[in-house]
Amino acid sequence: MLTSLQNTLVKQIRKLHSAKERHSQQLFLLEGTHLIEEACAVNYPIVTLCCTPQWQANHLQFWEDAVSRCQRAEIVSEDVLAALATTVQPDGVVAIVERNLQKTEVPFTDLVLALETIQDPGNLGTMIRTAAASGISGLCVSKNSVDLDNPKVLRASAGQWFRVPMSVSEDLKVTTEQAKQAGMQVIATLPSADITYWEVDWKKPSFILLGNEGAGLSKELAAMADLQVKIPLTPGVESLNVAITAALMLFEAQRQKVRG
Amino acid sequence: MLTSLQNTLVKQIRKLHSAKERHSQQLFLLEGTHLIEEACAVNYPIVTLCCTPQWQANHLQFWEDAVSRCQRAEIVSEDVLAALATTVQPDGVVAIVERNLQKTEVPFTDLVLALETIQDPGNLGTMIRTAAASGISGLCVSKNSVDLDNPKVLRASAGQWFRVPMSVSEDLKVTTEQAKQAGMQVIATLPSADITYWEVDWKKPSFILLGNEGAGLSKELAAMADLQVKIPLTPGVESLNVAITAALMLFEAQRQKVRG
Repeated sequence: MLTSLQNTLVKQIRKLHSAKERHSQQLFLLEGTHLIEEACAVNYPIVTLCCTPQWQANHLQFWEDAVSRCQRAEIVSEDVLAALATTVQPDGVVAIVERNLQKTEVPFTDLVLALETIQDPGNLGTMIRTAAASGISGLCVSKNSVDLDNPKVLRASAGQWFRVPMSVSEDLKVTTEQAKQAGMQVIATLPSADITYWEVDWKKPSFILLGNEGAGLSKELAAMADLQVKIPLTPGVESLNVAITAALMLFEAQRQKVRG
Repeated sequence: MLTSLQNTLVKQIRKLHSAKERHSQQLFLLEGTHLIEEACAVNYPIVTLCCTPQWQANHLQFWEDAVSRCQRAEIVSEDVLAALATTVQPDGVVAIVERNLQKTEVPFTDLVLALETIQDPGNLGTMIRTAAASGISGLCVSKNSVDLDNPKVLRASAGQWFRVPMSVSEDLKVTTEQAKQAGMQVIATLPSADITYWEVDWKKPSFILLGNEGAGLSKELAAMADLQVKIPLTPGVESLNVAITAALMLFEAQRQKVRG
């Protein structure tokens, strides 16, 4: 059992709390039973698994399954596990996995969420969770957004992170043009738009552009939209949280498909 | 200009970062220009205002207006302001106001959001923001929820905190019964429900019960509902974020009222 915070593996994992180290090691952390189960469910390869003796005792079957999948598995003390995790109350298990394996191609079909310069990891994680729940084709984020594998993004996605095809767009204008070429309608939300989001025909393949929490969508991207739509707000209220805006459109699309 | 962190007022305000002190002093903090503007807009009385010389110079008119409203106003150094604020990058002004003046009666009309044991201040603040945007009658939270005046709730409400009638319910079962007596339909979200949320007739006065982030709604409250409804989720996805669930119902109600 690893009990020392000076252990090389422990030190390496703790470094992954920083974005810079995740980028240089090309690894990131999965924390908690649920998320690691989801990783196993999609056969996402695990590099290293660390758990406490108590977690192992409570999850023997899972432990054996996970060990057979990963390059290295270690039992660690409660103190070491607490140091490895970024959460205040970790549930006894963390794993290291490779970055960017998730970078699948997002198909230009049905519904795609395209996010420009999203800063808040809670918002991005919540949008991933909502995207999984509504069953969209995928989610693209601009390169200057918060990392998809930021621990707070993973946490806010509530275990749904592995269920959504996601990609990082080097240039969201190029990706948007590709979506247009593929026959998708490009939809941007703007407070000044004339059309309300429920007036859109969501049965058409739709590529939804959403902008930064403070500044909104850039002019260049907004200008590429086939449709500009608004969410109707009480006078005096400027805007909604971006994850709320995303959810309203994704589920209005659902409603139209079911209700006709 | 106050420059010492040892100043009595500075110490008193810093204590308000803790819930216990907010409860014992019966005061809480407003941070940032936008929120304090909104407080002034509804004539919410301000006890003390503190700002940096630069903020004062940039907001002379607002400063004069605010000073005429508050019991005490102080210019403080950048360092002191940074210590008073709970945010990492405060925008140069904080105010202290009394607690519980917001505890207006929430009318049992139109749409009311009733929240049981909400733990996450970001979720509660986002629901307040969404409630303001959709123009509902008000929001009730159970007594064991996170405080309405928690700094993170205020921040997530994005300045909309003063626009929504809010109350703390001593017993949400009693409040729910009152809503029923007043002729409201009581609606609970349950994953196992037969009715989808867009099948509800939202033109009727509706009292929406939402439960804790992890445990969901208590059995007692769920049993009081006239209608149990679900949000349709992709198989394998357990739930949505509670603020997302709230938003979907509030804006479906909007849609039905506008679209008929």
